[in-house]
Amino acid sequence: MTAPLPAAPAYRRMSVEDRRSQLLAAALRLFAHRPPEDVSLDDVAEAAGVSRPLVYRYFPGGKQQLYETALRSAADELELCFTEPRTGPPTGRISRMLDRYLVFVDEHDAGFSALLRGGSTASTSRTTSIVDEVRRVAAEQLLLHLGGDRPGPRLRMLVRTWIAAVEAASLIWLDEEKRPTAPELRDWLLDQLIAALAAAATTDPETAAAVRGLLELEHTEGPVGRLARGILPTARRAAGQGRPTGLRSP
Amino acid sequence: MTAPLPAAPAYRRMSVEDRRSQLLAAALRLFAHRPPEDVSLDDVAEAAGVSRPLVYRYFPGGKQQLYETALRSAADELELCFTEPRTGPPTGRISRMLDRYLVFVDEHDAGFSALLRGGSTASTSRTTSIVDEVRRVAAEQLLLHLGGDRPGPRLRMLVRTWIAAVEAASLIWLDEEKRPTAPELRDWLLDQLIAALAAAATTDPETAAAVRGLLELEHTEGPVGRLARGILPTARRAAGQGRPTGLRSP
Repeated sequence: MTAPLPAAPAYRRMSVEDRRSQLLAAALRLFAHRPPEDVSLDDVAEAAGVSRPLVYRYFPGGKQQLYETALRSAADELELCFTEPRTGPPTGRISRMLDRYLVFVDEHDAGFSALLRGGSTASTSRTTSIVDEVRRVAAEQLLLHLGGDRPGPRLRMLVRTWIAAVEAASLIWLDEEKRPTAPELRDWLLDQLIAALAAAATTDPETAAAVRGLLELEHTEGPVGRLARGILPTARRAAGQGRPTGLRSP
Repeated sequence: MTAPLPAAPAYRRMSVEDRRSQLLAAALRLFAHRPPEDVSLDDVAEAAGVSRPLVYRYFPGGKQQLYETALRSAADELELCFTEPRTGPPTGRISRMLDRYLVFVDEHDAGFSALLRGGSTASTSRTTSIVDEVRRVAAEQLLLHLGGDRPGPRLRMLVRTWIAAVEAASLIWLDEEKRPTAPELRDWLLDQLIAALAAAATTDPETAAAVRGLLELEHTEGPVGRLARGILPTARRAAGQGRPTGLRSP
C-alpha cells in the first residue's frame, strides 16, 4: 500500500482490467492515509496519472463508488490476516493474527480511524455492512482456535467483545502516535484475551471446557504460563490466601 | 421513556417550554424503540397529539434536528448513570454504574442499537461526537474509581477498551433478546474488568500500583475475592504449579 505507484503517463494503453486495478490501487493508497472527506476524484486521477473523465468511465458512481470498492478490497485483505492453521499453541496462532492485523492498521492508519470512528459522509449502510462482515469473519476464525466447532453463547460474546476491545485499542494506538510498539500492544491484547477467558471460565461451563482444552495445547513457558505466574500472587491475596493483606472480611 | 404520554389534545394551550419538552419526550420515546429511519415527523406529531407544522415551528430542522436533540437529551441521561460516590469497594461502585447503564440500554433498545451500529442516514459528525462525549465521560468517571487522579496510559487504554467491550456486549445482548439477565451480564462484565486489570498489572507498573490500591478497598467475599478463588486452580495449572497437567514444557 505504501510503495509508490509506477509512473503512468496519461492514457497509456492498458487493458480494462489493468486500468481498473491501477485506479483502485491509487484510490486505496489515498483512502488509507486520509479520511474519505479529504480525498477527491481529482486526487485519484492525479495519483493514477489519468484524467478525471477516465476515472468516471471506470467508476461511474464517482468518489463514493471508488471508496466502497477500495474498502471492499481492503476488507478482503484484512480478512486474510485472520487465516491461521489450527496447529501449535493457540496463543501463538492468535499472536500471529494480531501481528498481521496491526500491520494492516499501521498501513491504513488515517483511513482505518475515519472508517471506524463513523460520522463520515462516506459512511453508508454498505460500508457498515462491509466492516461488520470483517468482524464476523474475525470472530469465526478466532472461535475456530478457541472454541472448537460448537462454541457456546458466552464464549461467542467473549470473542466479539474482545474484537471490539482490539478495535478500540487500535484507534487509541493510532491517536497516540503508535505507542506502545506493535509487539507490546499485541502482547497486551493477548494477555487481555487470556485473562478474559480465565474469568469467563469461572461462571460458564462451556467456556471452562474450552479453556481446559486450550491449556492442553499451551507450553508452561508460553504467554499463558507467564501471565498465570504474574497473576498468581495478586490472585492469592485477593482470594484471602497467602500472606496477610489489607483486604477486609465483610 | 416507556410511560405513556398524557393525552394531549391538539393545540392545547401550553407554554413554549412545556410544548418543546412534550415534543421532545414524544420524539425520545419513538427514537428509543425504532431506528431513526423508521420514525417520521408525522409519527412525532401524532404521538404528541399536535400537527406537523407545529412540530416544525419548534424544530425547524425537522426530523434530523429532533433526532439530534433527542440524542443530546438521552446522552445527558446516560452520563448521569456514571456518577457514583467514591466510597465503598470499587467493584460495588462499578456494579451500580453497570446496573444503571443496562437499564438505559434496556429502555432505549432499538435506538441504542441503531445509533451504535452506524450506517444510518441520521448519523452525522454531530451524532458521532455526542456518542464520543458519552464515552469520554464514562472513561473519566471509571478512572476516578480505578486510577486515582493521574492514571497512566495503559490504565486509560484498559478502561477505554473495556467500555468498547461493554458496548459490544450490550448490542449482542439486545440481539439475543436480552439474554442472559441484566444482573448476569453485569457480573460477567465486571469479572472481565477485574481480570483485565489483573492481567495488565503483570506488565505495567502504573496499573500494578492502581490494582494494589484497589485491592485494599475490596472485601475477600466480594466479586474480586470470588473471581480470584475461581481463577486460582486454572492459574496454578497454567503456571506449571500444583497438580500435574497436560501442559508441556517447551
